[in-house]
Amino acid sequence: MIGVGVVGYGYWGPNLVRNFAETPGAYVASVSDLNTQRLELAMARYPSIQATTDVAELIRNPRVDLVAISTPVSTHFDLAMRALRAGKHVLVEKPLTRSSEDGLRLIEEADRRRLQLFVDHTFVYTGSVRKLRELVRTGELGQLYYYDSTRVNLGLFQHDVDVIWDLAVHDLAIMYYVLPMWPVAVSTTGICHVPGGMENIAYLTMFFQENMIAHVNVNWLSPVKVRRTMIGGSQKMAVYDDLEVTEKLKVYDKGITVKSNPETLYKMLVGYRTGDMWAPQLDTTEALALETRQIVKSIETGVCLATDGRTGLHVVRLLEAATQSMRHRGYITELQTEMAAA
Amino acid sequence: MIGVGVVGYGYWGPNLVRNFAETPGAYVASVSDLNTQRLELAMARYPSIQATTDVAELIRNPRVDLVAISTPVSTHFDLAMRALRAGKHVLVEKPLTRSSEDGLRLIEEADRRRLQLFVDHTFVYTGSVRKLRELVRTGELGQLYYYDSTRVNLGLFQHDVDVIWDLAVHDLAIMYYVLPMWPVAVSTTGICHVPGGMENIAYLTMFFQENMIAHVNVNWLSPVKVRRTMIGGSQKMAVYDDLEVTEKLKVYDKGITVKSNPETLYKMLVGYRTGDMWAPQLDTTEALALETRQIVKSIETGVCLATDGRTGLHVVRLLEAATQSMRHRGYITELQTEMAAA
Amino acid sequence: MIGVGVVGYGYWGPNLVRNFAETPGAYVASVSDLNTQRLELAMARYPSIQATTDVAELIRNPRVDLVAISTPVSTHFDLAMRALRAGKHVLVEKPLTRSSEDGLRLIEEADRRRLQLFVDHTFVYTGSVRKLRELVRTGELGQLYYYDSTRVNLGLFQHDVDVIWDLAVHDLAIMYYVLPMWPVAVSTTGICHVPGGMENIAYLTMFFQENMIAHVNVNWLSPVKVRRTMIGGSQKMAVYDDLEVTEKLKVYDKGITVKSNPETLYKMLVGYRTGDMWAPQLDTTEALALETRQIVKSIETGVCLATDGRTGLHVVRLLEAATQSMRHRGYITELQTEMAAA
Amino acid sequence: MIGVGVVGYGYWGPNLVRNFAETPGAYVASVSDLNTQRLELAMARYPSIQATTDVAELIRNPRVDLVAISTPVSTHFDLAMRALRAGKHVLVEKPLTRSSEDGLRLIEEADRRRLQLFVDHTFVYTGSVRKLRELVRTGELGQLYYYDSTRVNLGLFQHDVDVIWDLAVHDLAIMYYVLPMWPVAVSTTGICHVPGGMENIAYLTMFFQENMIAHVNVNWLSPVKVRRTMIGGSQKMAVYDDLEVTEKLKVYDKGITVKSNPETLYKMLVGYRTGDMWAPQLDTTEALALETRQIVKSIETGVCLATDGRTGLHVVRLLEAATQSMRHRGYITELQTEMAAA
Repeated sequence: MIGVGVVGYGYWGPNLVRNFAETPGAYVASVSDLNTQRLELAMARYPSIQATTDVAELIRNPRVDLVAISTPVSTHFDLAMRALRAGKHVLVEKPLTRSSEDGLRLIEEADRRRLQLFVDHTFVYTGSVRKLRELVRTGELGQLYYYDSTRVNLGLFQHDVDVIWDLAVHDLAIMYYVLPMWPVAVSTTGICHVPGGMENIAYLTMFFQENMIAHVNVNWLSPVKVRRTMIGGSQKMAVYDDLEVTEKLKVYDKGITVKSNPETLYKMLVGYRTGDMWAPQLDTTEALALETRQIVKSIETGVCLATDGRTGLHVVRLLEAATQSMRHRGYITELQTEMAAA
Repeated sequence: MIGVGVVGYGYWGPNLVRNFAETPGAYVASVSDLNTQRLELAMARYPSIQATTDVAELIRNPRVDLVAISTPVSTHFDLAMRALRAGKHVLVEKPLTRSSEDGLRLIEEADRRRLQLFVDHTFVYTGSVRKLRELVRTGELGQLYYYDSTRVNLGLFQHDVDVIWDLAVHDLAIMYYVLPMWPVAVSTTGICHVPGGMENIAYLTMFFQENMIAHVNVNWLSPVKVRRTMIGGSQKMAVYDDLEVTEKLKVYDKGITVKSNPETLYKMLVGYRTGDMWAPQLDTTEALALETRQIVKSIETGVCLATDGRTGLHVVRLLEAATQSMRHRGYITELQTEMAAA
Repeated sequence: MIGVGVVGYGYWGPNLVRNFAETPGAYVASVSDLNTQRLELAMARYPSIQATTDVAELIRNPRVDLVAISTPVSTHFDLAMRALRAGKHVLVEKPLTRSSEDGLRLIEEADRRRLQLFVDHTFVYTGSVRKLRELVRTGELGQLYYYDSTRVNLGLFQHDVDVIWDLAVHDLAIMYYVLPMWPVAVSTTGICHVPGGMENIAYLTMFFQENMIAHVNVNWLSPVKVRRTMIGGSQKMAVYDDLEVTEKLKVYDKGITVKSNPETLYKMLVGYRTGDMWAPQLDTTEALALETRQIVKSIETGVCLATDGRTGLHVVRLLEAATQSMRHRGYITELQTEMAAA
Repeated sequence: MIGVGVVGYGYWGPNLVRNFAETPGAYVASVSDLNTQRLELAMARYPSIQATTDVAELIRNPRVDLVAISTPVSTHFDLAMRALRAGKHVLVEKPLTRSSEDGLRLIEEADRRRLQLFVDHTFVYTGSVRKLRELVRTGELGQLYYYDSTRVNLGLFQHDVDVIWDLAVHDLAIMYYVLPMWPVAVSTTGICHVPGGMENIAYLTMFFQENMIAHVNVNWLSPVKVRRTMIGGSQKMAVYDDLEVTEKLKVYDKGITVKSNPETLYKMLVGYRTGDMWAPQLDTTEALALETRQIVKSIETGVCLATDGRTGLHVVRLLEAATQSMRHRGYITELQTEMAAA
């Protein structure tokens, strides 16, 4: 049995506790939070779990094999490093760290100690995103043309990260999982409306070596909630709307056919093809339940079957480049080429 | 009575003919098109109107006081200039011209001859956009935070202009009408999927002197049609969805309140305010019917009451800057400062 | 060439004129309306068509082979009978007549004179309803369980018929076309909110010899427009939403499986099956264009290929029974058994 | 502190336990269920609560002041009567009992013993329904014209009650709370598709002394879930869609104006009025949390502040009449006149 210690019992922590508690092969040994009220809530729900305001106590608890970190981003590196040095496997909330340098150090520390380092990219465990990957990877969509996502709502303004690190990170995690390629450059624009705060609206355009483009629109100041991603391909196009209750994923048999020998200016270059729409049935297993099971299996077998530190690092590097571009109003920023080697 | 000659009887021309035909104070004297099949269709519907494949005949027709040009963009300048030189008032389909230089020459020619030059920015005559302007200009939305628009669908790929000049032009026309300010710089990204063609997907970010941002997402390769614009302000936020049948415009009493003295890092900087949503009743007059009436009144009175050449030129200058930025993958492009003087 | 005379140029008449004018093998010879303003509108649009306030003139016009009647229901019988007696084929707006007796007399008169009598059940010529019929008739939905339709909006209150004869008639026409069976009894409830008026809300339940039920909800006093029909079968279920712009028809691979040997009270009798959803591409030909072509072909060949008087009579008989039931607050009313012999 | 015993830990029971556990002034003392697996789940979550398969043990537990019954309908009467006779207050899941006779006996028993009897009509504690009541009761909608509800989905087929007792009961509970009047007669139709089962589709029409009508459409065999209620009045109309995430309630300033002196047949009797739409902000407190608080306050003060047995009895009497009408294919069934006296 894998013992889990959950650091941080705020918004997401309770979901980690609940899911690890119900994962075969795992149990929750300890929960820590600086806020005693949150801790009391945890104790009321789970009287048998050790609850502490001292994270060091949680980390050194011998019943804890895996430390799951669900705290503000700025604390990820320090907490994860302490846990690794105490010989514990680590799961870190997204994004992995505040900087790629920190992320790389965590990966190296884990490798050195033969420990596993996971990043909690929850969305890639949803039925919708797994089906999306299948559609892309089996070639059903054909050659990819674009990935376009809108992820906006009112709030919650974060204090230690901007809207890119808070919301766009989900899209980058999904892109890393779904797409067979990765951006080589990014141009980002954004704005901050809160004095002394961080950007609350941002637009990321990502370029690829292939003739493909990705765009992500994130906004903490939208009166309506939108969670919509479109992936266009030469054969089919998919629309993934996470707010739909049932048909979250729709596949359109639509596209264009380009004629090769246009003879005159006014002759049509492009033909349009429209066919059926299809909404495949999706696995409705709770994403985090699948994720915790994969994590527990990874620890049991020593083979990583879940989103790992390197995955988290790729996403952090793109976030860094996006932030850098945004500071220069869209100036194109190349991604480091040693990326693949990470 | 104002006699109107309509050049081009393709997609939009029939709407111009129908609306001018039903506008008090106007009649349609002539229609021209290079395509004889289109011309036969016009003749079948309006047997009493002169129909010709020779635009020169239409322009020199003494019964024609106003030449309405509804042809590919690349032909706008030449046709409009010929009409002005023949002493006719001119209405040009959006965008006004292929270049700001051409647009400026048309304006100067019209001024010199005391003729009126109109640009067909149809959307600004819709009930939705007029109400949107009212909400913005009366301060009901408060200080403006952002303008964010998505205008995507499958096709129609244009041959002489890219997706910015075809679709984003609508948003720029709406922005010019609705907003009390105008961008000072633009960063645009885009991609072309048709060999030898023009960009079919583009993303424009526009910066203002004020702490405000605008973004427009245009795409000819989307499986679904979206026409949604959000305007966020410090008091209220509006969502304008042109595909809604009835409630096209929704006003949300939502926003944030920024606390001035945040004491600690983790203390909440931002409060959220949510209230009622309200969908005002909108005037359902056909936009083009209102526009043709305003144009006829403008000619009758000699006072321009419709979207004029200068308005069209502002939009063309922004389109030029956007294209230039897109050629350099988002490189920030300042708008010419003599803009206001145009 | 078949000459057509259109009686009534109000809401629907212009559509008849436009479609017959564009149907190969047909031309519009005459239009009549009591309202001279409407007539002037017709003349302005179609200067070459005879326009008259005297329907007798239209009927005796030798260039008129087919009289298309688009007038209030109470006038259908008289106008149709006059046209038949003048030797003209007749198309009557839905519902065919105010009473089944009148309908039967028209059918007999047409038969006697070897003329064709059509009823304008426009919806059965839409791509959606034709595909729905295909799904039902090929057995793709399996054994039919129910037909459930909601057809509500604000207005237009009719003066000579209640909401059943105005709105439910569409559903009965669709049911007659789509279903392989026909109701044997009906229970209808309704209410009138206008003093001296007719019922403006009604609910029809229809019973069949098979274990199937149909229900239609019609309402002139709804703040929102709804046009939604569900057909449930043992294999699949279809939802037809006529207000959707693109995917009007959705087919759900959902249903129940009934276990044959339930052993205990609390054991599950019923299993649920859910699978993909599929929105077939639909023919977007204008329904009335297809209908007028079928009517012209029917007259040319002498073989009826369109919705005929007998079809209209079945629907009228059901409307009569529904009204009778409604007068007695839902009292079950059997349909006449000689129905099939009509 | 009020001690609560929850009988039945199936679908709804866990919600009762969680909400009573978090209600100030209350605690959960005991949970009983015949299914030991369900009981183990309860014990895992709440180790300190007595868990038993023997409901008698729960009822006689001196720490239990209120017995909350969340079991199949057929068991309600017996369990509630045993609890009352043991001197406990009782909360019964909807519908109160299988028959009005049983309901009346429970009310009398509770009265005799000065105990409180509650019925769990959860929907009337939602922000949407409370706002709906306010709109109706303050006269904002004007004179009421109709109540029209659709409540359909796939499953869950119940074993001891038909779809009326399972789904329509929600609408009747809402109607009783929202409307200032109550039906005098009902006409119901329905059908059963499961051999040996109960009706799984039903349509209820309810008549009032006022010129008002109510209709409820319930269906366990719908491929899509619909939860939509419309209330039409002479001043405004409301649409309550419980599946909307945010704007669940929309109020339309729409209606008709009836002209009193129509002179001719063809003169318009009815004018149409359309204005703004408005979606009021709604209280998002969990309905059951508000309900449990009201129940606890009722017991503390001795004054019933929650939905009581008499309320439940009114609904059961209507359900009985509806079932009776359905057995006779829509035959109108009068409600007992001593209703008000219950």
